[in-house]
Amino acid sequence: MLSHSVPTEIPTHWYNIIADLPIKPPPPLHPKTFEPLQPQDLSHLFPDELIKQETTNERFIVIPDEVVDIYRLWRPTPLIRAKRLEKLLGTPARIYYKYEGVSPAGSHKPNTAVPQVWYNAQQGVKNIVTETGAGQWGSSLAFATSLFGLNCEVWQVRASYDQKPYRKLMMQTWGATVHPSPSDITESGRRILKMDPSSPGSLGIAISEAVEVAANNEDTKYCLGSVLNHVLLHQTVIGEECIKQMEALGETPDVIIGCTGGGSNFAGLCFPFIREKLKGKINPLIRAVEPTACPSLTRGGLRYHGMAPLISHIYELGFMEAIAIPQIECFQGAIQFARSEGLIPAPEPTHAIAAAIREALHCKESGESKVILMAMCGHGHFDLPAYEKYLQGAMVDLSFSEDKMQASLANIPHMS
Amino acid sequence: MLSHSVPTEIPTHWYNIIADLPIKPPPPLHPKTFEPLQPQDLSHLFPDELIKQETTNERFIVIPDEVVDIYRLWRPTPLIRAKRLEKLLGTPARIYYKYEGVSPAGSHKPNTAVPQVWYNAQQGVKNIVTETGAGQWGSSLAFATSLFGLNCEVWQVRASYDQKPYRKLMMQTWGATVHPSPSDITESGRRILKMDPSSPGSLGIAISEAVEVAANNEDTKYCLGSVLNHVLLHQTVIGEECIKQMEALGETPDVIIGCTGGGSNFAGLCFPFIREKLKGKINPLIRAVEPTACPSLTRGGLRYHGMAPLISHIYELGFMEAIAIPQIECFQGAIQFARSEGLIPAPEPTHAIAAAIREALHCKESGESKVILMAMCGHGHFDLPAYEKYLQGAMVDLSFSEDKMQASLANIPHMS
Repeated sequence: MLSHSVPTEIPTHWYNIIADLPIKPPPPLHPKTFEPLQPQDLSHLFPDELIKQETTNERFIVIPDEVVDIYRLWRPTPLIRAKRLEKLLGTPARIYYKYEGVSPAGSHKPNTAVPQVWYNAQQGVKNIVTETGAGQWGSSLAFATSLFGLNCEVWQVRASYDQKPYRKLMMQTWGATVHPSPSDITESGRRILKMDPSSPGSLGIAISEAVEVAANNEDTKYCLGSVLNHVLLHQTVIGEECIKQMEALGETPDVIIGCTGGGSNFAGLCFPFIREKLKGKINPLIRAVEPTACPSLTRGGLRYHGMAPLISHIYELGFMEAIAIPQIECFQGAIQFARSEGLIPAPEPTHAIAAAIREALHCKESGESKVILMAMCGHGHFDLPAYEKYLQGAMVDLSFSEDKMQASLANIPHMS
Repeated sequence: MLSHSVPTEIPTHWYNIIADLPIKPPPPLHPKTFEPLQPQDLSHLFPDELIKQETTNERFIVIPDEVVDIYRLWRPTPLIRAKRLEKLLGTPARIYYKYEGVSPAGSHKPNTAVPQVWYNAQQGVKNIVTETGAGQWGSSLAFATSLFGLNCEVWQVRASYDQKPYRKLMMQTWGATVHPSPSDITESGRRILKMDPSSPGSLGIAISEAVEVAANNEDTKYCLGSVLNHVLLHQTVIGEECIKQMEALGETPDVIIGCTGGGSNFAGLCFPFIREKLKGKINPLIRAVEPTACPSLTRGGLRYHGMAPLISHIYELGFMEAIAIPQIECFQGAIQFARSEGLIPAPEPTHAIAAAIREALHCKESGESKVILMAMCGHGHFDLPAYEKYLQGAMVDLSFSEDKMQASLANIPHMS
């Protein structure tokens, strides 16, 4: 019903990169037995169709009509040439960005929230539970459940619940129930509160709470917003659209850049382009960008659980590269972008923007007119205090510390 | 550079309804002499081209290429059928909404901010000043000035400056300087602060401050976000696009609904449809909706200065009707809309939504399958506390009071 849809149309299929990998990724292991996970090990958390998608070798998965119908609210998303940024940098490079901030929740997350809720609804599930940090994922899921008439319960990391009330209000406006985590509703929450009644919470604790509720209630399932194969799969609508859009513009990307936290936005844009690369049709560099203060790929081998295993695998296969950029450089780039292109990025894509600017400035030196494509995965409407901090000169670059990483790993629960 | 642009294209012209009116609107009067205003009376505030547009009888005004180039960031905006809302209401009516919230600032305001800044830039103006209340207009102007490289100074009503920090941060991210109003920078601000050092401010005071600065500085001009003829003119891109979009869908609107504060979003959607109506091509009802607590058109004759004189004139000519809806009914409708359609409206368009729901429910009773078209002029990302108030049952319906209106009028300064 959207009238601003073509020339590109919404893809009819999601792309499963596993089908095209010369070496398949190792199976996930059961956290207790260390044996490969079986579908039934996941069935208390996820509906059958999503478990199937998690392990399938099928190359293309049909997107259900009901999902496409919701996608129409904001898809196809725009591919925009950053002409004013190019001019500001004085670069001969041509910079394009694929913008996912036009979704109702303001990021790429609804691309997977909608199908996840749809498959749950199809299996008769009535309640969906999840965790959220800053609130991007929780609000995307609240949006999706409201459209299909399911209940939604979100455990939001306490610190964020208190400091970022707008995302919480957004979830509530869409009808979700939001608990600060740790909460006294769950065993895991109570255990933490007993040790530290004023715990600020963590994503790990919030996941534990949501998973506990899903595991103990028959008509309740859990949804995850990144990391898993089926999440990355759903995000490939971004790249599939973008391939057609670049073709329509007569452009071939030389470098494709995306930020990696959990990896779903990066995978969404890059996996379909990696397929074309494997076919020998194009030969772009595929570059992941992560925060210097919280690296994963660039510290090789750590296998930080926040990163999608499938991306780690593809990285090990050599199909992509990774760099880390410090926070202040990212916000410098974000301000340049906001004031030339007119869009205020979320903190995550500032990494992709800073990397694109680095590349564009290299082109300025070398005189190359490369085509740079980057993932601009969401707007920063609810992250403006971070900009305030930067503009006031109060932002500092944290350096990576092994201790901190260990502490952070300790907060990631086993998903049993 | 947007790839999601067609079938509808961005219009090439703005539409000036004055050219088609059987009786021309009376000229604005000089607030001191009560003689008709002359172009030179406005030249310390506005660039020549905008003064010309304010008084022209030309039917169509060409949109400059540079403006169209910026419009491409979010235009054409989507026209969406509210199928899930229709289903929720059980109505045979078909409800369409034209959604302006996809602009970088989140509302229809950039449609005029961009050309206003462009014409100022063409005339060599270096600094733009304005006032803002909740921040919609100030952020739209900050966005536009950042793209054309002009300085922007905004006086934001103190109460809003303190309570709605996100809009302020948005303006600062785009490079604008934001002052709480009353400020001690201007004569008008100091006068108020002397009487009441903790004054919460008002739009009237903020206008006085901005106008004072523009009047006293050669390279500085003032921009207004609503009310004036040239503002309404620029907003007609909405209706021009929408006529083509409705045609492409094979639909003819029976009722067109928009909210009226200053009137620019209403005019933007409706004026091109009124032209088609005057030609006898279509015959829709054109309905303005205003808040019961702050009526203007529905209390006839008051000529409240917040309403565009051109809309008052067209209302007096009988080309449109007006109703008032209380706040709680508006938010009830907004929640129904958010949870079925997935978009969270700004407080202003909740009036249009509530009126569309009323109409759709009448259709349910009568069995008519009318085509209802409404203006959804912005998202509510920065207005979520209002939703919180509604959801907590803390919202009350204020009734209109003549005293209050007089008090509010007293705050509107003369624009000399």
